[in-house]
This record gives sequence, structure tokens and C-alpha cells, in this order.
Amino acid sequence: MAKLTLYGVELSPYVRKVRLALAFKGLDYQQIAVFPFMEDKPVEFVEHSPLGKIPLFASDDNFITDSDVIIAYLERAYPQPALLPTDDIAAARALWFAEYASSKMVEVIGGHLFAEVILAKQFFNREPIQTDIDKAITTEIPEICTYLENQLSSDYLVGDSFTLADLCVGAMFLMMHHCQQRCDASKWPKVAAYIERVHGSKLFTDLQAEEKELFVKYGMTA
Amino acid sequence: MAKLTLYGVELSPYVRKVRLALAFKGLDYQQIAVFPFMEDKPVEFVEHSPLGKIPLFASDDNFITDSDVIIAYLERAYPQPALLPTDDIAAARALWFAEYASSKMVEVIGGHLFAEVILAKQFFNREPIQTDIDKAITTEIPEICTYLENQLSSDYLVGDSFTLADLCVGAMFLMMHHCQQRCDASKWPKVAAYIERVHGSKLFTDLQAEEKELFVKYGMTA
Repeated sequence: MAKLTLYGVELSPYVRKVRLALAFKGLDYQQIAVFPFMEDKPVEFVEHSPLGKIPLFASDDNFITDSDVIIAYLERAYPQPALLPTDDIAAARALWFAEYASSKMVEVIGGHLFAEVILAKQFFNREPIQTDIDKAITTEIPEICTYLENQLSSDYLVGDSFTLADLCVGAMFLMMHHCQQRCDASKWPKVAAYIERVHGSKLFTDLQAEEKELFVKYGMTA
Repeated sequence: MAKLTLYGVELSPYVRKVRLALAFKGLDYQQIAVFPFMEDKPVEFVEHSPLGKIPLFASDDNFITDSDVIIAYLERAYPQPALLPTDDIAAARALWFAEYASSKMVEVIGGHLFAEVILAKQFFNREPIQTDIDKAITTEIPEICTYLENQLSSDYLVGDSFTLADLCVGAMFLMMHHCQQRCDASKWPKVAAYIERVHGSKLFTDLQAEEKELFVKYGMTA
């Protein structure tokens, strides 16, 4: 069994996604806290993360960076349990939702909400940009919920079981909940029920318990 | 055999990448020209490209968007010839260079160089931002060349044969050549020889011939 190491901090949506994938696959790993802007980063991080981004991952001394690449590696090297459906079109659909989470949802929920509501004052020592927060709540998150409401035709986003799509989209809604924002069940009933279903799985209840401790550790509040 | 359709225009680095992947796999497809900002987009494009981005791809009536997702689909559905190495770590390395091309190289060569040198005047009807062009030429492209010079230890970026890494990175250098910029062989000899090698392959000479016609068709000059 290779020695697995994850460099990054849990607050990052990209690190969270990889942690969920590692937990889903039942893999043990060591985590080394690296903030993107900290000085004195571990030397192996500087050497193997050419864009200075988190997460960086190592399997023994093979380094892999970029969350999507790390997850693709994990899916190949540790195929069971599978994060992608067997069917090629369904797999592409799951990869699309992962991409949607990493682009649109990170931009809105990570950038306009979490970064402003939580990180601005407590980590960046500046006033939050209220127009970004307002835009996220009144326009952008409703657009996301409407899109997903139209995509949901079963209990999960792709096929009838949990896939990478649910891992990535579910992780984004977890970050939204950290900011005390919820999907309105009267407007988006399928999405609201879906979030409850995904967040009720052991994968997510375990993560939520860990993140609660982190919020206490870092003295974070929404 | 499924009917394959690609929506997008060749000038986009993301569309170019998918066209190269389709050519590499020897797949026939229909291309439908869609500019991201054109009005009257095909109705199926509006319906199936939720972020309005090109390319969109269809296999019969199964729509897939995002260039990385499309390529992942092609690699699964049409595994031979393979774009990814068999070895998991080598495959991750190839996916990393694809990501590096799509992020850093698109930002610099697509955004700071091609968009300003070629698109600004001829398509956006505005003056180019000279500081972006200067920054690309004096700082950012040298950084990219230096990074790649240190990564090249054989004729190709990963292992001893052509992979997705070379397809994606090679496509970016093609876009740089459209802007009359070249990698300086006296400073980055391995990269310069590598570009010549990759661009000399039939995959790239065919594409270059097609793009030459496009430049004439659109009346484009650098």
C-alpha cells in the first residue's frame, strides 16, 4: 500500500472534494496543512505544485496536483468503490457536474459567498464585498438551484446511485450551509430533498463533524 | 457508429483541443460553427450548454459540454489509439499537462497574447491592451518555457510517446505561432526541439493546413 499525503487546508473547496474522494474510497492518508498564501511552505509543495495551488497529493514520492487530476488518479488506481458510472455517457454526465461544481458553483458559493461572509473579515482582515454576497443570494444561487432542479430526475444527479457528481455538488452546498444559506424547499423541492439525502450519507455526516471541529479550532463564524 | 457533432469555432483553444482529439482517434464528425457571443445560436446549443461555453459535443442525441469532459468521454468510448498512458501515475502526469495548458497557458497565450494581438482589433473592434502583450512576451511565456524545459526528459512530455499532454501543450504553442511569437531555441533548446517535433506530426500538420485556410477566410493577420 502506497503512502498517501494530501497537502492543503480543509477550507478550500478543492481540498474538500479530494478529502471526500479519499474517504469514499476508504483510503488512509496523511494531511499536511498548507494555505496557498502562507510563507514557509513545505519544500516538496513548492517543488511539485507549479502554480502554487492546493491541493497537492503524493502517492509515495509521485506528486500530483490539481483536484480533478488527483480524483482521476484515485479513480484509476483505486477503482472500487467507483465514483464514475460504467456507462460512458453517464460517466461524462458525472464529470460535467464535477466541472460545474468546480467552475460556476465555486465562483458563486466559494468566491461570492464563503470568501466574503467568512474569509474576508476573519482571514483577509478586510470588509466583505456586500454586493457580491447580495448577488450570490438573490441571483446566482437561485440560478444554480433552478438548473439543478431541472436536472434531477432521480434520487441522484446521474443514474440511480451516488457518483462523483453528488460528491462535488454536495460539497458545494455544504460550503453554502457554512454561510447560513439554504436552498428554499418551496421553490426548489427536488434540490432541497436531494441536498438532505446527500448530506445525510455517512460520507457527509463524517465530514460535517470534522468541519464543525475545524470551525471551532479556527474560531470561525458565519 | 454514432453521429458525432461538434459545436464551436476553431479559433477557441478549447475547440482546437477537441478537434485534435477527434482527429487523433480518427473520428468523423460534423462541425457547427458557434461563436460564444453570437446571437441566434442553435437551439440545441442553448439547451445543452448551461454555461453557454464552447465546445459542445453530441454523440447522437447525447450532449456533452466542457472540453476536458468531452476528451475524457472520447478516451473512454474510443479507447484506441489511446491519449492516456496505461500507467496510472503517467496518466495523471498527462492530465496535469492538459490542465496546465487549459489554465496557465490559455490565460497567457490565449488571453494575453492571441486575444490582444489578433482578436482585439479584428473581432472586438477595440485597441489591444499592449501591457498584456508585453507581459506575456517578456515574463509569462518565458516562465512557461522554463517550466516545460525542466519537465522534458524525453522526446515527449510523458513517457516516450505522444499523449494528451503533447496534444494540449502543442496546441497552445500553435496559437502562439499564430501571433508570430516563437520559443527561443538558444534559451529553451529542449522546448524548441519539442515543439518542432510535435508540430511536425501529421496530426498537427493537417491542423495547421486547415487553420491557414481559416486565417484567409476570416481575413486574420497577426
